[in-house]
Amino acid sequence: MGGGHGCVEFWYEFASTYSYPAAMRVERVAREAGVELRWRPFLLGPIFGSQGWNDSPFNIYPVKGRYMWRDLARICEAEGLVLKEPVRFPQNGLKAARLALLGADEGWGPAFTRAVYSANFAGQQDISDEGVLGELLTRLGLDAGDLTARANAPEHKEKLKAQTSEAVARGLFGAPSFTVSGPGGDELFWGNDRLEAAVAWARR
Amino acid sequence: MGGGHGCVEFWYEFASTYSYPAAMRVERVAREAGVELRWRPFLLGPIFGSQGWNDSPFNIYPVKGRYMWRDLARICEAEGLVLKEPVRFPQNGLKAARLALLGADEGWGPAFTRAVYSANFAGQQDISDEGVLGELLTRLGLDAGDLTARANAPEHKEKLKAQTSEAVARGLFGAPSFTVSGPGGDELFWGNDRLEAAVAWARR
Repeated sequence: MGGGHGCVEFWYEFASTYSYPAAMRVERVAREAGVELRWRPFLLGPIFGSQGWNDSPFNIYPVKGRYMWRDLARICEAEGLVLKEPVRFPQNGLKAARLALLGADEGWGPAFTRAVYSANFAGQQDISDEGVLGELLTRLGLDAGDLTARANAPEHKEKLKAQTSEAVARGLFGAPSFTVSGPGGDELFWGNDRLEAAVAWARR
Repeated sequence: MGGGHGCVEFWYEFASTYSYPAAMRVERVAREAGVELRWRPFLLGPIFGSQGWNDSPFNIYPVKGRYMWRDLARICEAEGLVLKEPVRFPQNGLKAARLALLGADEGWGPAFTRAVYSANFAGQQDISDEGVLGELLTRLGLDAGDLTARANAPEHKEKLKAQTSEAVARGLFGAPSFTVSGPGGDELFWGNDRLEAAVAWARR
């Protein structure tokens, strides 16, 4: 981090397909630009629900869904990322998001986040399963039992709800999103393909 | 055109906001890459209608709409394009699309297309008005009366319907879109931000 540039907040949901390449490259892109990065897991389910969707729009609109999977395959190929059909789409990312939010405050959030995305979109693992998540934590040298207990504490559950409410209040409607705060208010960027623009904005 | 590269087909709808920057830069991007370009006006209305939408999704989902206008403003600023609130959104681009389809076969399509997008998104003109379209044709040195009559002929109306049906058959669901045909079938790219990827695909 150098040069006194601004900060980019990276908003992601573990079920979100385009959040996968974004999560894998956001740290490199921000670092190369000297821009500070904040990892902000949130939940899309409540936001989609308030629009009357109880499933991913990519399932509700199959033509768009077919395109998305092909587009994602091209993007992952260009990034050198493995992409395999998930065990289910969308997966329930609630428990993973609670853990990631804990990790965001304690320094292990980025590595855990990348591990969960790999498990979902490359490893064909069930990321709603606490056993799977616990194994990812253990592989990072973390105490899975302790973290899982803290992630499921009522006050921490509320913290993730508040994070999602903040996302709504700041105009988010999809993931990944990036916000850059400035004197004139927030700038919102939506989509893996807007990462570079968000980082450039933080450098203005 | 050089080097025997492939061809990119550029699918656009005159009401579509992101088709505006795409239309203004597609010729330059394709030419610089030595890729052949085919201009393919079509109508989104029937496609949206078949998904149950009788308005732009940017109006149906206002949070997404607010984001889109801000995102478009940033893109136009970066491209040096004027952007002013259209007289109406979405505008009815049916008559303009019939003319553009005629022009695509006769060489004046690209210049006319750019003139219509400028009228819609920079000039605050009503592009559903035959008088407005006629003036754009006249300014290009064309015979507005003759072209308008030919554009409104029943067989030409059918030709635009066929173009839209082809778009549906090829998996299009939004605009702008780009298709690149190859031995393995079509590659579809959606969005102004995928223009470079489409052109790169045509060079493979």
